[in-house]
Amino acid sequence: MRGEFAALIRLTSQLADTAPDLRPGPGETWIGDDAAVVTPGPGRLLLAADTVVEGVHADLTLTGLDDLGWKAMAVNMSDIAAMGGVPAQALVAVSGPAQTDLELLYRGIAAAAACFGCPVVGGDLTNAPLLVVTVAVTGRVEGAPVLRSGARPGDGIWVSGPLGASAAGLRSYRRGGPATGTVDQAVRAAHARPSPALRAGLAAREAGAHAMIDVSDGLSADLGHLADASGVGFRLERVPVAEGATEADALGGGEDYALVFTAPDATAVRAAFAGLAAPELIGVCTEDPGERRLRGRPLPVTGWEHEWSEAPAGGPSAPGPGAAGM
Amino acid sequence: MRGEFAALIRLTSQLADTAPDLRPGPGETWIGDDAAVVTPGPGRLLLAADTVVEGVHADLTLTGLDDLGWKAMAVNMSDIAAMGGVPAQALVAVSGPAQTDLELLYRGIAAAAACFGCPVVGGDLTNAPLLVVTVAVTGRVEGAPVLRSGARPGDGIWVSGPLGASAAGLRSYRRGGPATGTVDQAVRAAHARPSPALRAGLAAREAGAHAMIDVSDGLSADLGHLADASGVGFRLERVPVAEGATEADALGGGEDYALVFTAPDATAVRAAFAGLAAPELIGVCTEDPGERRLRGRPLPVTGWEHEWSEAPAGGPSAPGPGAAGM
Repeated sequence: MRGEFAALIRLTSQLADTAPDLRPGPGETWIGDDAAVVTPGPGRLLLAADTVVEGVHADLTLTGLDDLGWKAMAVNMSDIAAMGGVPAQALVAVSGPAQTDLELLYRGIAAAAACFGCPVVGGDLTNAPLLVVTVAVTGRVEGAPVLRSGARPGDGIWVSGPLGASAAGLRSYRRGGPATGTVDQAVRAAHARPSPALRAGLAAREAGAHAMIDVSDGLSADLGHLADASGVGFRLERVPVAEGATEADALGGGEDYALVFTAPDATAVRAAFAGLAAPELIGVCTEDPGERRLRGRPLPVTGWEHEWSEAPAGGPSAPGPGAAGM
Repeated sequence: MRGEFAALIRLTSQLADTAPDLRPGPGETWIGDDAAVVTPGPGRLLLAADTVVEGVHADLTLTGLDDLGWKAMAVNMSDIAAMGGVPAQALVAVSGPAQTDLELLYRGIAAAAACFGCPVVGGDLTNAPLLVVTVAVTGRVEGAPVLRSGARPGDGIWVSGPLGASAAGLRSYRRGGPATGTVDQAVRAAHARPSPALRAGLAAREAGAHAMIDVSDGLSADLGHLADASGVGFRLERVPVAEGATEADALGGGEDYALVFTAPDATAVRAAFAGLAAPELIGVCTEDPGERRLRGRPLPVTGWEHEWSEAPAGGPSAPGPGAAGM
């Protein structure tokens, strides 16, 4: 048994130590075989995968390898949350230089697995000149999942929490030095360890939400995707901005992993969110798919999207997370 | 809608055109939402993920981007085959430079999806300085999957087909120039477009195989993993070598994606493989876990494994595919 299998055994025991409640059930086999064997459970199965690339989605001069591991898990949990589902299992595929501190990376992965109740059941470990972590996740949803495409004119538009903290946190890290106070600490934490809105996703589904998406690219871009998929327009009256952030951060910063959803019945929404942080009603869906307004003016289109495969050969790519879920 | 979403729509339609029979069932939603929604079907669920890195697992100066896409799918299909399962759905996460020819990459992915009946239901597309393709796959198995750990002393050891063709093909590509004949063509094809042994995996499970693994690192390494997991030793009498390859290729070349399995009943194996290429009986499992022999002599330990996370910081990494499934 040589290096990588020894590393795998260490990492597997690290995962088990961090989340002792997450163990294979009867008939299940997790890490250590060609594939993991799991029992899918009732309801439909959700499947998602997202990649975090060193230097693109996480600047390791600002945040840690453990934060990168957390983030790779969290962004996938957020995809399941945005369907109104519950995460079930994760596969973690790590490519990176041989000297990568895998224990530190897996400390963040294991912490996220424990926090979100989503065990790592398998994956892959390969050599690459650059650190690339892809997590694939399964989730379960009982009843109908909440798609992006179900919004109808007249639906209220809700956000599960204030936006922009991640962008403000990145700015704070780039400024350098220690955090300047509790708000600064909070926005840094929001950037380093984003928190998927799993309970809010379930509540939105229970409230009869027609459509939902997570805010990974910024409210403008992501609400735009939802409206595109649903064939509706929207008028927003307000944007909930996190303390320490700006409205521009909220509209275009991205990586907040709050949920945006549309629902016909405000009373049902408030009832379903009893005991959770109250979501905010920010606007309404309209008939005209071309209408995209904030306080009566055209919504600025911002966000981190980049020009995939249409950039000139060898040309520079735009900054930012630059990810498109399929 | 900007570059990457336009690219996604093109790629999605490319997938649909290549495999028109693979379409979402009732209640399913594939590409285009935060997560794919699928119906898991009966039996246990298999989950696996494997990564192919440009320059590490695929030399793009020798084989094409479409071959890389095929390979990323095929190695995952092989993981499902090695459990005795049937692949169900794939997620494809691509990280790469903006000028990557995604259409060519997806031509290989789509061809594999069609060939193996495994639709791509979602994934991710992100910017990175280097091309890294991770595929995660679900599979189904009715009854008990065939693990690595079930081999018992006295079991016959079988290989689903001859080995070493992929290593011989890589050598042929590196030599350069056109293929020198049909054997040379065949070994190049085995390297560029490996073929997972899905039917053999099913037949082995039906035959009552006790343990199974796919040959990704070479027979020595992979049979070693099986023996380690099962706590058995083995004596091999022969190694089936592909035409154009050497015994060293078969033992240490890897990437053949044939299956090695152990089974107590040779008659049951031959019956289950009726109509398929006949598997070859190459040896027997023994009581002593320390025994690893070929024709009476100690089996050379070779294969592409590398020193993950134990290499000195900044030190060189060993050549070869360098992957460890979890």
